[in-house]
Amino acid sequence: MPFKVYYLSSEGELRRGLGEDEVRAAFESKQGLLWVDINETTEDDGEFLSRNFGFHHLAIEDCVSPLVHHPKVDDFGDHLFMIFHGINHKSESDIVETTELCLFLGSHFVVSNHNVPLYSVNSIAKLVEDDGRPMRRGSDFLAYALIDALIDNVLPTIDQMSDVAEEIEEEVIHSPRQSTLDDILKLKRSILRLHRVMAPQREVMNRLSRGEFSIVSERAQIFYRDIYDHVVRIEDLNQTLRDRADNALSTHLSAVANRQNESMKILAMVATIFLPLTLLAGIYGMNFENMPELGWHWGYYVVVGVIGTVIVTVMCWFWARSWITWGRRRIPRVRPFAVEPEKLVGHLAKWVRL
Amino acid sequence: MPFKVYYLSSEGELRRGLGEDEVRAAFESKQGLLWVDINETTEDDGEFLSRNFGFHHLAIEDCVSPLVHHPKVDDFGDHLFMIFHGINHKSESDIVETTELCLFLGSHFVVSNHNVPLYSVNSIAKLVEDDGRPMRRGSDFLAYALIDALIDNVLPTIDQMSDVAEEIEEEVIHSPRQSTLDDILKLKRSILRLHRVMAPQREVMNRLSRGEFSIVSERAQIFYRDIYDHVVRIEDLNQTLRDRADNALSTHLSAVANRQNESMKILAMVATIFLPLTLLAGIYGMNFENMPELGWHWGYYVVVGVIGTVIVTVMCWFWARSWITWGRRRIPRVRPFAVEPEKLVGHLAKWVRL
Amino acid sequence: MPFKVYYLSSEGELRRGLGEDEVRAAFESKQGLLWVDINETTEDDGEFLSRNFGFHHLAIEDCVSPLVHHPKVDDFGDHLFMIFHGINHKSESDIVETTELCLFLGSHFVVSNHNVPLYSVNSIAKLVEDDGRPMRRGSDFLAYALIDALIDNVLPTIDQMSDVAEEIEEEVIHSPRQSTLDDILKLKRSILRLHRVMAPQREVMNRLSRGEFSIVSERAQIFYRDIYDHVVRIEDLNQTLRDRADNALSTHLSAVANRQNESMKILAMVATIFLPLTLLAGIYGMNFENMPELGWHWGYYVVVGVIGTVIVTVMCWFWARSWITWGRRRIPRVRPFAVEPEKLVGHLAKWVRL
Amino acid sequence: MPFKVYYLSSEGELRRGLGEDEVRAAFESKQGLLWVDINETTEDDGEFLSRNFGFHHLAIEDCVSPLVHHPKVDDFGDHLFMIFHGINHKSESDIVETTELCLFLGSHFVVSNHNVPLYSVNSIAKLVEDDGRPMRRGSDFLAYALIDALIDNVLPTIDQMSDVAEEIEEEVIHSPRQSTLDDILKLKRSILRLHRVMAPQREVMNRLSRGEFSIVSERAQIFYRDIYDHVVRIEDLNQTLRDRADNALSTHLSAVANRQNESMKILAMVATIFLPLTLLAGIYGMNFENMPELGWHWGYYVVVGVIGTVIVTVMCWFWARSWITWGRRRIPRVRPFAVEPEKLVGHLAKWVRL
Amino acid sequence: MPFKVYYLSSEGELRRGLGEDEVRAAFESKQGLLWVDINETTEDDGEFLSRNFGFHHLAIEDCVSPLVHHPKVDDFGDHLFMIFHGINHKSESDIVETTELCLFLGSHFVVSNHNVPLYSVNSIAKLVEDDGRPMRRGSDFLAYALIDALIDNVLPTIDQMSDVAEEIEEEVIHSPRQSTLDDILKLKRSILRLHRVMAPQREVMNRLSRGEFSIVSERAQIFYRDIYDHVVRIEDLNQTLRDRADNALSTHLSAVANRQNESMKILAMVATIFLPLTLLAGIYGMNFENMPELGWHWGYYVVVGVIGTVIVTVMCWFWARSWITWGRRRIPRVRPFAVEPEKLVGHLAKWVRL
Repeated sequence: MPFKVYYLSSEGELRRGLGEDEVRAAFESKQGLLWVDINETTEDDGEFLSRNFGFHHLAIEDCVSPLVHHPKVDDFGDHLFMIFHGINHKSESDIVETTELCLFLGSHFVVSNHNVPLYSVNSIAKLVEDDGRPMRRGSDFLAYALIDALIDNVLPTIDQMSDVAEEIEEEVIHSPRQSTLDDILKLKRSILRLHRVMAPQREVMNRLSRGEFSIVSERAQIFYRDIYDHVVRIEDLNQTLRDRADNALSTHLSAVANRQNESMKILAMVATIFLPLTLLAGIYGMNFENMPELGWHWGYYVVVGVIGTVIVTVMCWFWARSWITWGRRRIPRVRPFAVEPEKLVGHLAKWVRL
Repeated sequence: MPFKVYYLSSEGELRRGLGEDEVRAAFESKQGLLWVDINETTEDDGEFLSRNFGFHHLAIEDCVSPLVHHPKVDDFGDHLFMIFHGINHKSESDIVETTELCLFLGSHFVVSNHNVPLYSVNSIAKLVEDDGRPMRRGSDFLAYALIDALIDNVLPTIDQMSDVAEEIEEEVIHSPRQSTLDDILKLKRSILRLHRVMAPQREVMNRLSRGEFSIVSERAQIFYRDIYDHVVRIEDLNQTLRDRADNALSTHLSAVANRQNESMKILAMVATIFLPLTLLAGIYGMNFENMPELGWHWGYYVVVGVIGTVIVTVMCWFWARSWITWGRRRIPRVRPFAVEPEKLVGHLAKWVRL
Repeated sequence: MPFKVYYLSSEGELRRGLGEDEVRAAFESKQGLLWVDINETTEDDGEFLSRNFGFHHLAIEDCVSPLVHHPKVDDFGDHLFMIFHGINHKSESDIVETTELCLFLGSHFVVSNHNVPLYSVNSIAKLVEDDGRPMRRGSDFLAYALIDALIDNVLPTIDQMSDVAEEIEEEVIHSPRQSTLDDILKLKRSILRLHRVMAPQREVMNRLSRGEFSIVSERAQIFYRDIYDHVVRIEDLNQTLRDRADNALSTHLSAVANRQNESMKILAMVATIFLPLTLLAGIYGMNFENMPELGWHWGYYVVVGVIGTVIVTVMCWFWARSWITWGRRRIPRVRPFAVEPEKLVGHLAKWVRL
Repeated sequence: MPFKVYYLSSEGELRRGLGEDEVRAAFESKQGLLWVDINETTEDDGEFLSRNFGFHHLAIEDCVSPLVHHPKVDDFGDHLFMIFHGINHKSESDIVETTELCLFLGSHFVVSNHNVPLYSVNSIAKLVEDDGRPMRRGSDFLAYALIDALIDNVLPTIDQMSDVAEEIEEEVIHSPRQSTLDDILKLKRSILRLHRVMAPQREVMNRLSRGEFSIVSERAQIFYRDIYDHVVRIEDLNQTLRDRADNALSTHLSAVANRQNESMKILAMVATIFLPLTLLAGIYGMNFENMPELGWHWGYYVVVGVIGTVIVTVMCWFWARSWITWGRRRIPRVRPFAVEPEKLVGHLAKWVRL
Repeated sequence: MPFKVYYLSSEGELRRGLGEDEVRAAFESKQGLLWVDINETTEDDGEFLSRNFGFHHLAIEDCVSPLVHHPKVDDFGDHLFMIFHGINHKSESDIVETTELCLFLGSHFVVSNHNVPLYSVNSIAKLVEDDGRPMRRGSDFLAYALIDALIDNVLPTIDQMSDVAEEIEEEVIHSPRQSTLDDILKLKRSILRLHRVMAPQREVMNRLSRGEFSIVSERAQIFYRDIYDHVVRIEDLNQTLRDRADNALSTHLSAVANRQNESMKILAMVATIFLPLTLLAGIYGMNFENMPELGWHWGYYVVVGVIGTVIVTVMCWFWARSWITWGRRRIPRVRPFAVEPEKLVGHLAKWVRL
């Protein structure tokens, strides 16, 4: 519903808060640069766009409909219709949520729609209000500024996900809990969601930057190429997060298995020690009349001695065995992948021959 | 068998329920728009199509045969033959089933075939009966209406699958059962089945929307592009469902392993406490003649005291150990991926330089 | 070794069982249609082909050699050499085996080779003997008939594999055995083998149907396209089988884990009940002189009462706990993915706007 | 170091063991066909090649360097430089090792380099010494002979790997050992190594056979196509081996789990039988003064009888339960995928309609 | 910050340590070859580049920004901007880290930027200082030398990773520890990180070597092709490492499972032996008045004899069973994949027919 309208006339004068008639006049003059930004787009806004700009009703429906739309770019001849996804920083969900920015880009106008307030759009609007700078180089540069701000705002979220991954890695090694698994799986879902939005975005940026659409001037293409590089970097960081999440999962499952292993080992040890000894005590608890050992003076002490010896011996044996295989302190590898300089230099001297 | 025939003459008059002769006359006039819809297609219907429209017998066989056919589009020069898949809403299976809609699309006729009644076709037929609207813009728009209704009817099923996924996720955390696994695997099969139908459909829609076939007018292509976007969105939602099902599976298996872990821990604890104590009692149950402790006045009380102390101590130890590692209440992370606004704004101010 | 020769002269007369000279004469006349079918191809047959038809010796080697060859099509200018795979219905193996059909296709001849008798070739031969029909439309149609019959004969095997999958699914849920795993893995190998043969076949059919080779007339291409569709369908069914086999494997492994879980639970329960009670009995079996409880009149009855109470209580507790989590009968979901008609119709009314 | 030089003059005369001057003269005459084969290539050999043939020093470095090089083909205008991999049959490793054959192919010369003696090159050299045959059809045919021999020599190794796979499959079912896992993983590594060499080789053969390089005459291309087919077949066999290794791994892990299951079952059974009975015996071993059963004449016999009955009953119950689920002999499926002939013929009669 | 400047005038004179004015003069003369190398690039350096060379500010930002950038090549018409990744040999991390080398390549200048000192750049600088050789063949050869040295310096790290993999493989078989898993996962992360950097680098090298950019002369392309081959080899070695890490992981998990299996077997054995015997002893410890065996003279000896016999028998049985299945020494397979020479030669003789 909330509207923002900016118009930079061909004389370089910036006007704000135009009414509907002025907007249509500006649009039809095909001069200067008009930017209309619509937040929380409603059906009424859709009709406004249809009435004044004559956009295709399918494109308007994409803006108005609350459903999720894939990033894309549609060419309508004299203008482009584009959908991009950024992080929804207003969401309170445990899993990263994305939100859409719909852009109509003509040679002298930009219309942006979104369903939640976007920090990126606000920042650009503030820069425009300051001195109109983002609008002074043409509509393709204004669109670039909006898209670039949207994409760059993904990075702080990636950072936060990275912090969460670090916390999880810590937890997995030092105090694995049942809830850790849940955290890992939630992180993985965030990663996958981001991936599914970024992959088509990369394709769209690629098309915009290679001169497929005449509305994007050659001078601007290198800027779109830069956004493309940012998208690739985000995908890369996201992929790294995915590997870390997968490794955390492996470590967690292995820790659970180890815990069980330990219970089992204790159990085996206890049973191995005490079951035979209980039998021994049981034997001398039998009531046979003819059991000569029972009359021996040191009989009791011998039996108790045997019991004590066996307990100590078996415990030592178990302890030694565990020590050998699980407890030996390893000498930590120092910088395992750092190579000695000589090796590198010698290597080069041998190979670089021109 | 059941037939529906609509004919919109070039004068804009809508006629219904034409006989075979009239159908052929309408077809041969190459004027107006003829729509024949055949439900539960039989061999007789196939011959009817061959006799009156002269379609290729391989295409007719695809309509008549009860086997499943892949989505495709075949170009026969003056008409297209297309197969699409939608959800079979009449099916009583536990797993999502799809059903086919075969379309012959010529410049002045549309012939649709299906083996089960389709809600989507019925809706369009009702709109036609109301005021003939879906037929007034040409055959490619009528075909668009039929395909769009078919594809959009997949969404309610996706919603239902999403509800099932939520139920399963709930169950997996709070009361995992053996049958839960079965539910997860069934959901996965539904997801895969849908995926296998949607992937080729996407390709077909892409070909229809990029002007490969002259029968689809340029004006209509943007509408076909819209269906393409819907198919992409359905694939996306389906993919999300798949991730959720996979995560539910991981959680379920982990819950089963934990349950076992717990049994093991109880067992280890019980054995560790009682086996040694039973040995102690067994020792004083031996019948040796010379066992001085037996004559001590406080002997019995000492032994019982030792037993009680050991039981309490070991239980406390186990409890503490479990508490440390598994029971500590975690402080729930609040909105883990929401970034503070200042960070975003500052970030932008630094990066957006035009 | 066994030979079948059919010759349809340009006058439409069908001759059978030609001698070598007649074959060469027919081949060199470049008129009519000659079909030579060689079963269990030997070195002698290879020389026969080389002598009379002048085929490339590498192609002949592919026919004669008992090794497995990948499906392919080679263009020798005036004729094509093709290899296709069908099911070897004579095999007695537990795993599906495929067998090759080598075809030389010229404008007026077809030479087919295979190492095992093929039902598909026999059927076509019988149709030829009846009235020569499959040969009356030209060599490309004869080749189509042979390939189509070969491919379609894969379907009954797919059906049988589907039956096996059903049996396995039944078994996995109701009576998992060690041998079940073996069955699942064998089924998977059959599926993979079929997949590896079908995937290149799809490519070959695609090339044949898109007019890449002039020997395949335009009229025949749509028929080859039909075989392509069949191959796609077979791959699809095969893929579904694969999902089912994978799910069966998951279920089987989970069933094994559950079984172990159950043993563990019984063990934990038995130990938890009886070890403490045995200790209790052991205490009153000690021979201390001063144990006042031993002299109490109701002492024995109290101890036995305690024992009985504990056993009943713990068993109830375990039973209740299991009941809560594993035993509750679930209300079966009825047609979980069937959507109510109103939802569909309302949905449509909202979306289809032309 | 060891050299072999053959020269077939344009008059058809074969000369052997040429000196350096003669080699250069033959090379510069641009007539006849010169073949130089260098085994265990050293730096000296590299200089020899550079001095007499003027090859690019990067290509020579690839021949001389002991590092592993990817299969490739480089076009130097008047000659090709190719690297192929074959099996190193001299290796004593547990894992299949490949070795390189570097070929320089010009219109009238072939230079081959390798670091270990190759059976394939020796065989061709022997054929040349016999009657010069492999050299009589031109340099592209000589290169073909060398590559073909190299690739075909992979097949015996595949056979041997297949034998190992069979041994492993046997072992996994009848006597799984810890070392079996090691064998499976080694086999998998061999398979992967072979795959990584064969995949690029396929690409190289494809380029050579489709007429991309003018040095390979059209007549020879079909022969290179044949090698391409062999590479595809090897990849196929290798893929089958991979599936078998994966299945063996699954079976092995499942066998280990089953073994554990069995231990658990025995343990649960033993504890369930004897712990309660021990308690019973313990009760009657208590020393209460007032225990009326102790005085009964048949008391002892009743208790012993109860004990015996319980042991027999529980063992029967366990045995029956196991028998039902794990031990029932299955009726072996006879040729599960062989279809009855009638089904096939009937099927065909229905579908083949021309 | 630290600067290195070299200028080779068109007369072949090498000058070093030029000031800013001289650098600009040299750049603007468009003659000779200018190389500026900037280590630890700062904002000031960025302004220096912008002021004197007029590079696009987005490219300069890529050099200055501490964020990670994907390998790429951008064409700015009269110069290329390239980013490559090499190993950061200064890093002290446990996981391999890469660092960037940014190159501006014009027809008569090369500007290189990096954030950490690079051994590869230093080596080339030293060669230049010696006799200016790497600069004498033009800017594309200087760039080649820098990239080649960077890429080749990855190999020693791969070697070190290979050593670590070997250590891990040793450890996994002979003394698996909990920390081993951690090592394996760290190695895997190093491998993945390297892979993610090398894959796009391969693409960049491919574009540089196939003549897409006019600045890279045809003579230099074969050298760039050589780097491409090195990248492919590194990817190959990396892939092999990945397989080894995966296998080590499998072995480790299997070893953990086996360890548990063993505990379980010991437990089952101990319980099976001693629980029944304890019951036996318990029976004869009962205090029934009428227990005739108690009065028998040999009663006690018979019971003790039975106990001893049972212990020995069951232990033998368990030992034998384990021995049969797990302990039998296998005859090690000698060179399992080495084929007998006769087989190879015979094989060849059969197949090579020209």
